[in-house]
Amino acid sequence: MDIAGSNRRIYLDNAATSYPKPAEVFEAMARYMRDIGASPGRGGYGSSLDAGRLVFEAREAVVQLFHASRAEQVIFTPNVTYALNFAIHGLLRRGDHVVTTSMEHNSVMRPLRSAEEGVVAEVTAVKCDAQGRLDPRDVRRALRPNTRMIVMTHASNVSGTVMPVAEVAGIAREAGVLMVVDAAQTAGVIDIDLRALALDVLAFTGHKGLYGPPGTGGMVLSPRAATEMAAIIQGGTGSRSDEEFQPGFLPDKFEPGTPNTLGIAGLGAGIRFVLENGVNQIGMHELRLASKFEQMVRAIPGIRVFGPWETNTSAPVCASDRVATVSVGLTSAQADASQVAFLLDRDFGIMVRSGLHCAPLAHMTLGTFPAGTLRFSFGWFNTMGDVRSAAGALAQIAAGY
Amino acid sequence: MDIAGSNRRIYLDNAATSYPKPAEVFEAMARYMRDIGASPGRGGYGSSLDAGRLVFEAREAVVQLFHASRAEQVIFTPNVTYALNFAIHGLLRRGDHVVTTSMEHNSVMRPLRSAEEGVVAEVTAVKCDAQGRLDPRDVRRALRPNTRMIVMTHASNVSGTVMPVAEVAGIAREAGVLMVVDAAQTAGVIDIDLRALALDVLAFTGHKGLYGPPGTGGMVLSPRAATEMAAIIQGGTGSRSDEEFQPGFLPDKFEPGTPNTLGIAGLGAGIRFVLENGVNQIGMHELRLASKFEQMVRAIPGIRVFGPWETNTSAPVCASDRVATVSVGLTSAQADASQVAFLLDRDFGIMVRSGLHCAPLAHMTLGTFPAGTLRFSFGWFNTMGDVRSAAGALAQIAAGY
Repeated sequence: MDIAGSNRRIYLDNAATSYPKPAEVFEAMARYMRDIGASPGRGGYGSSLDAGRLVFEAREAVVQLFHASRAEQVIFTPNVTYALNFAIHGLLRRGDHVVTTSMEHNSVMRPLRSAEEGVVAEVTAVKCDAQGRLDPRDVRRALRPNTRMIVMTHASNVSGTVMPVAEVAGIAREAGVLMVVDAAQTAGVIDIDLRALALDVLAFTGHKGLYGPPGTGGMVLSPRAATEMAAIIQGGTGSRSDEEFQPGFLPDKFEPGTPNTLGIAGLGAGIRFVLENGVNQIGMHELRLASKFEQMVRAIPGIRVFGPWETNTSAPVCASDRVATVSVGLTSAQADASQVAFLLDRDFGIMVRSGLHCAPLAHMTLGTFPAGTLRFSFGWFNTMGDVRSAAGALAQIAAGY
Repeated sequence: MDIAGSNRRIYLDNAATSYPKPAEVFEAMARYMRDIGASPGRGGYGSSLDAGRLVFEAREAVVQLFHASRAEQVIFTPNVTYALNFAIHGLLRRGDHVVTTSMEHNSVMRPLRSAEEGVVAEVTAVKCDAQGRLDPRDVRRALRPNTRMIVMTHASNVSGTVMPVAEVAGIAREAGVLMVVDAAQTAGVIDIDLRALALDVLAFTGHKGLYGPPGTGGMVLSPRAATEMAAIIQGGTGSRSDEEFQPGFLPDKFEPGTPNTLGIAGLGAGIRFVLENGVNQIGMHELRLASKFEQMVRAIPGIRVFGPWETNTSAPVCASDRVATVSVGLTSAQADASQVAFLLDRDFGIMVRSGLHCAPLAHMTLGTFPAGTLRFSFGWFNTMGDVRSAAGALAQIAAGY
């Protein structure tokens, strides 16, 4: 069934994971599986060294992407959630106070609540406005003498609101507080320059804007974070095999067990793909699509747009305050978001996510709790045709086709 | 350069990771990457449901392999090290005593030492004999009133010695102590039947005997472990998205963040491959190769074999006391293991691991610390020809070719 007149399926859930992946990512992974196969750092033979080289090249790609200084600062983790847990549970101590925002994903809120429920920390979630925007002055006001960490997202996965991390990082630096940023929604679409941005932990996911496979992510650590962060998971590292204690040097300290060399090979290729196309070019392409989409759906009766899009003036797109994620809601009572998502998929081949996007506090901030939203998120492989199809389908559904 | 007269490279490091992988594993992964791509449990559209189905089918394959009772008992983790950390750090409490063995890998010893160094537990490592064999009576004697857990490997990654887990599990059950087994070296080659074997945590790796890709592993939990184990990593699960606390139900409690659906798809295919060929058939094939290899190298002057092979009587192979991992040492002082491994790779295309295999205490037990061993580990895709090539190469090197 294909009411929209197109038989191509349209993927608009890039905020969950990007799809498709570049051919280079497939090829890098197939090459590892076929020709190498070995584990890095676990043998002195050629294939094991080749595997080590693949991982090192991926580390170098991360260095280049974020303008980091050394490959050892880059830690690969199974996903961004693990990186955030390593930072939160590895850095917080008894009696610490933590500042976060009301726009966080559960990858930040759940470890924080767990730490707070346990013995460790007290958490202040600074309230953002109804478009999800944070006033950095509120962060400064939330600091206490025992504040040890500010942890916050770089952009909301619900509304696409970009947070003022540079300003907050400046406040953190001034106060001697650790600054941890969740770049799950921004790595690959907003230029993150660690030479200018003083972060202690930059946590990133591999399978969204970096076009790697699922099972990949990581973090870039400042010297302070590298020293002060305890390794909450320990195991074999292929190094210091004579010792029963986790080695203290990077990256081994935080990479226990056999690494996901296959995934890391794909991630390295994904990052090189992003670097070749240009982070700003990709970000602007996606934002152009999202802006066009927002303009089209804003005109549909019965549809409401949330987040920074709500106050959009249709001015030339500015990349600074949002990423290409548009959450909409239906003002009519008869259709809920999950029903619309189902119809978009079944009748139009359009894939979006509906409901609460693993971020309850963010939905409360935006006024979309507990109903949630219908989220359209654009990627490098989407086109203006996809935008028109999606907006057209939404108009048909809203009109009760 | 190819002294051995064969131009095929021979991979004998299957105890680190198996290579090659079955074609079915490639195909399952390529299909996910090409046709599905979405994250499971993160959307209601068809591709996300397809991804969820893939993960569920892999869970069902694990159930079938280990004769578990329900798919929810099966938790996927990034590797076996994470599963063991989840069990150790998630189950141990202040003041607990833990019993382990002197044959453990650092995936067990490092989290235990970290727990011991911190606030949590005291650890008794029961001494095994010079072949790595454990007397279950020593485990019983090590128990104390505050013993909460016995954690041990199912087979040594250094010597291939299989441990008496059934007997120890009986002792644990009797004493009301949690029983945690590291099946990194046995899953896929020894039949593990959870209907008969009372384990609280069976931790497994995906990329060795189960022929999945790196980045995969997991654990099967008893109802007691599922309840008592705290989730040490928290994050989005695609479930209970209205809550800032980690959900308490399985498998979500222990699977935070976007899962490695690509890897899990490959692991599912790998396990189905193992089930089709038969765990016992695979185990016997590998053991036949290892036994033949051991017989051949035993005859080489200057070579010593460690572990249960040392007392091998050349009787018909018995699958019960060892897996297909043979560690050898050189009695002559002029060549060390890493030098021999280098020559095997460079001149004969034979890939093995040398040194300390992330298990310092095991090497002390076997009397191979700190020099380590040269480890030959066989897989399903190895042949008797590989065995002859490896033994022949070793003979040439020992003779100072």
